[in-house]
Amino acid sequence: MKSRNEKELGFGNKRYQKTVRFLNSDGSINISRGGLGLQNIDLYNWFISSKHHVFYSILLIGYLVVNLVFGCAYYLIGAEQFGGIDTSSEFQKFISLFFFSAQTITTLGYGHIYPVGNAASVAAAFESLLGLLAFAIVTGILFGRFSRPKAHLEYSKNLLIAPYGEIKGLMFRISNKKQYELIEAEASVMLSMNDPRQGKRIFLQLPLEISKINFLTLAWTIVHPIDEKSPFYGLTVEDLEERDMEVMILMQAVNDAIAQTVYSRFSYKANDIVVGAKFRPMKTEPDAKGRLKLNVTEVHHFDVVEK
Amino acid sequence: MKSRNEKELGFGNKRYQKTVRFLNSDGSINISRGGLGLQNIDLYNWFISSKHHVFYSILLIGYLVVNLVFGCAYYLIGAEQFGGIDTSSEFQKFISLFFFSAQTITTLGYGHIYPVGNAASVAAAFESLLGLLAFAIVTGILFGRFSRPKAHLEYSKNLLIAPYGEIKGLMFRISNKKQYELIEAEASVMLSMNDPRQGKRIFLQLPLEISKINFLTLAWTIVHPIDEKSPFYGLTVEDLEERDMEVMILMQAVNDAIAQTVYSRFSYKANDIVVGAKFRPMKTEPDAKGRLKLNVTEVHHFDVVEK
Amino acid sequence: MKSRNEKELGFGNKRYQKTVRFLNSDGSINISRGGLGLQNIDLYNWFISSKHHVFYSILLIGYLVVNLVFGCAYYLIGAEQFGGIDTSSEFQKFISLFFFSAQTITTLGYGHIYPVGNAASVAAAFESLLGLLAFAIVTGILFGRFSRPKAHLEYSKNLLIAPYGEIKGLMFRISNKKQYELIEAEASVMLSMNDPRQGKRIFLQLPLEISKINFLTLAWTIVHPIDEKSPFYGLTVEDLEERDMEVMILMQAVNDAIAQTVYSRFSYKANDIVVGAKFRPMKTEPDAKGRLKLNVTEVHHFDVVEK
Amino acid sequence: MKSRNEKELGFGNKRYQKTVRFLNSDGSINISRGGLGLQNIDLYNWFISSKHHVFYSILLIGYLVVNLVFGCAYYLIGAEQFGGIDTSSEFQKFISLFFFSAQTITTLGYGHIYPVGNAASVAAAFESLLGLLAFAIVTGILFGRFSRPKAHLEYSKNLLIAPYGEIKGLMFRISNKKQYELIEAEASVMLSMNDPRQGKRIFLQLPLEISKINFLTLAWTIVHPIDEKSPFYGLTVEDLEERDMEVMILMQAVNDAIAQTVYSRFSYKANDIVVGAKFRPMKTEPDAKGRLKLNVTEVHHFDVVEK
Repeated sequence: MKSRNEKELGFGNKRYQKTVRFLNSDGSINISRGGLGLQNIDLYNWFISSKHHVFYSILLIGYLVVNLVFGCAYYLIGAEQFGGIDTSSEFQKFISLFFFSAQTITTLGYGHIYPVGNAASVAAAFESLLGLLAFAIVTGILFGRFSRPKAHLEYSKNLLIAPYGEIKGLMFRISNKKQYELIEAEASVMLSMNDPRQGKRIFLQLPLEISKINFLTLAWTIVHPIDEKSPFYGLTVEDLEERDMEVMILMQAVNDAIAQTVYSRFSYKANDIVVGAKFRPMKTEPDAKGRLKLNVTEVHHFDVVEK
Repeated sequence: MKSRNEKELGFGNKRYQKTVRFLNSDGSINISRGGLGLQNIDLYNWFISSKHHVFYSILLIGYLVVNLVFGCAYYLIGAEQFGGIDTSSEFQKFISLFFFSAQTITTLGYGHIYPVGNAASVAAAFESLLGLLAFAIVTGILFGRFSRPKAHLEYSKNLLIAPYGEIKGLMFRISNKKQYELIEAEASVMLSMNDPRQGKRIFLQLPLEISKINFLTLAWTIVHPIDEKSPFYGLTVEDLEERDMEVMILMQAVNDAIAQTVYSRFSYKANDIVVGAKFRPMKTEPDAKGRLKLNVTEVHHFDVVEK
Repeated sequence: MKSRNEKELGFGNKRYQKTVRFLNSDGSINISRGGLGLQNIDLYNWFISSKHHVFYSILLIGYLVVNLVFGCAYYLIGAEQFGGIDTSSEFQKFISLFFFSAQTITTLGYGHIYPVGNAASVAAAFESLLGLLAFAIVTGILFGRFSRPKAHLEYSKNLLIAPYGEIKGLMFRISNKKQYELIEAEASVMLSMNDPRQGKRIFLQLPLEISKINFLTLAWTIVHPIDEKSPFYGLTVEDLEERDMEVMILMQAVNDAIAQTVYSRFSYKANDIVVGAKFRPMKTEPDAKGRLKLNVTEVHHFDVVEK
Repeated sequence: MKSRNEKELGFGNKRYQKTVRFLNSDGSINISRGGLGLQNIDLYNWFISSKHHVFYSILLIGYLVVNLVFGCAYYLIGAEQFGGIDTSSEFQKFISLFFFSAQTITTLGYGHIYPVGNAASVAAAFESLLGLLAFAIVTGILFGRFSRPKAHLEYSKNLLIAPYGEIKGLMFRISNKKQYELIEAEASVMLSMNDPRQGKRIFLQLPLEISKINFLTLAWTIVHPIDEKSPFYGLTVEDLEERDMEVMILMQAVNDAIAQTVYSRFSYKANDIVVGAKFRPMKTEPDAKGRLKLNVTEVHHFDVVEK
């Protein structure tokens, strides 16, 4: 009912009218999910995935807003319920209470401003609890952000089609950008393209020469042999472009600094293909101390081997 | 001694007199364990699984109770051991000491009330340590709550029996509710029903057309082909209802925002079955920016294909 | 060179003169490792595994000691470098400085005692940093203690030898003590005994009827069939006692509240064996609300079936 | 195209002119990656992997620098915006503001120095927020450092070639240094050497007698049988030295105190080989209480069995 090699990938198999990219170049999946209102929202995952400047701006704005709210609350309770307030003007009273709020929510508590009345004391006791909880949440999110397991891989800019033994091979190359080690690395490569015969989009798992290695130390050239059973067999780059081809890569490996499995995704489109080129070996001669130096940018380098 | 397909699932194989549901509709298992007293209680798992309003109410009540206890302790030690106390009445003395406790346990420490006597200082030093420890525990629990790995899946409301090639298939459909991606998704589907011939409840693992996909991006229709070997073969919905059928689903996938395996459970009863219907493909035409939009509620939609 | 079934378990295969128990009844391994001095010590694992009363006593004593040390340091710096000190006696000076230390290390900082001189200010600034770091460490350890993944299993007190189809089976039963669910449970059962023919201790993996179940919901009776290939075949309980038999169990499962794999160990000796008994099914009739109630203590119950 | 046994290990297969060591003796991989500027830097992994004295020195220096920066900022705002400042000299003003910064960033807040002007209050409110965030980050890193999963294995200093049944075997021995237990231990052993026939460096996975054990309790001797298919067959130690041989070991196991998979690496060079020796069994007689004592340093001991 389904060819052995064809694999359901969860992308559906509709043929789109327009050109479609399932994976963006940064590895994120090009889809937005809605229809369930608040249930679609997942704050924790959003907070740990958001960019640094967005995250820290939200923190700072949140801190301002909370202090404004509590400053107003204290003002409504009445500045006379507090000791040490600057009562030179109504505005200055509010400013004093705003700073009192900041000193309370951070549990700083200098004490030159302090609650005297009971209502003020209750509000301050509540604010300090809230501060501790908010800080606990922020600690958790910051830890989640820092320890978020991700594979930092550099993928070659191009997908090469080069001689491979007697036949041709489809090849790309990856290298680890960071100093920690990736072990037990595993590659899964999928092809998505429109199939003019079936009139729908097909998704196939591509067989690889080697799909798992023990150490991802220097670089790894991942090869799909284009034999007669390969979906690339007999197709030109123009054919692939017309069929809106996308090669999607899912890498997994263990980051052994934290002993956790990490993932990375990447995708190539037809215009990333270079025919008749082979990756140039990366230079790794040991230095005087016997330490091998690797320039990760060389992962992109290739040599034209035929025309 | 046991048929190959029959699998021990840990539910026992007793035939119950009443209708039984092993999995509730929210995926929780319908069983309560007792008999070991305190050993049955597991506070950490309870705290990280409890509903938000329950958890935060407990926190607030706990904060009140601890401050009442320390307020009383300070009152027994004697208000004269403290500086800055409002001594206008016995009640106001207690209130001052209650707020002093709140300022101590949060390590706020304004200092307008402060311990003078040695007993008061010892109690305050102990309370501040306790506050730090309690706060450490709360931080841990809050982080556990936020980072708790769970698959947020929307399951189709109905279990369909529809034509599947030459035969029929039992089908349900799932979709990811959240924006993070689920990869390496795997389904395990089990059937539980009373078997009139054996006079007991049987539990069988149902073979699936595909039980694992790489990406759970749009939606996944999970199909059990009803061939001659299937336990559904030749049974009507009425038969299934009479046999108190339950289809139990255990999904696992990797949430790639946190690179952790997550789980989800669901179950269908006989009255969730619709015969002669097929799931309607979910609309996913790319928008102007080439981004695919998915309405997760469409996971429930089906079309009647035969009567 | 080795029989297929024999498995190296890492216990060595020496025959001991005395009776030996490799696993204690609480599942801990009965061995102490030394010879490397400080390298044998692993504080983090010790702290997260230590008993509650030991851990909290150490915390309290540590808090006292640190404050005594800083109290002495401040006293040596000189009480005149501080404001708000009770100078009625030398002892009272020290006591004030001791409490000042407690207010500093917890970052409480009432401020009725405060550093005036520069040396005092430097020491206090250092102590408050130290307090924050110590508190960060304690937070980490407390989180490690709470979230430490462990399977809370109740093992039947006895190991039964009972009729199993045409032959006999060696059986024990387990049940989950807690309310969270254990899924994907897997059992590994090993036999260790002295072999009089080989003159050494042998370790064998025992084949099981079923070694993995999807849900550990009610109870699971784990069965090793005593066929002709079983090492138990033809041996009496007296033989097993003489050979200093030990049956060691390693369970693994996924706690689905935290989606983490958890482990549990247990061991039986020859005197735990009961011959000719079968486990009594645990009562699980649904209550009025359709909820199944399970009394975990029934995991131990068995009925004598033959003499 | 590739022999079944040959495994791509990610080290490339270039033949180096000089002697190369891929794994250092401490298990770290002997390579440095560059070429991407800031993208090569990974602060979190660096912080959790750095040595204790480096890490705590950085913390202390960072604390000093931040307080100097804020001390300067407060001085520029003006000492007259603060209450409680020692104004005896300009330098003493700065010192007071430096200590005020330390009391603010730790949220200590004695309050004998306090902000009066609005600019001073804003700066202090910002510093206390910064302090909380920095502290959250430090808490996360400290937790990452403590809970970092690592297998603490002692590897025998030598690689022995000893009689093994009818043939010879290549053997090394490991033992757990710590008190926690390692379960489900798995070994993967790779050979790297220059191949004079192929004129390149080859990497081969070595088949092992047993590659996985359930408990790593006493010690485990890992054996590669040198049969006719082994790459060691017929080679002398001198041959191996000339070919710049390296035996690389990757161990993985589950630390059952934290239920996490941990890794360890080690490598041997040709000069670590001892021919004709066998590991001496480690002494493990039970003591009076029946507890087995293990001296981990005995893992290195061997006896010469032939010349």
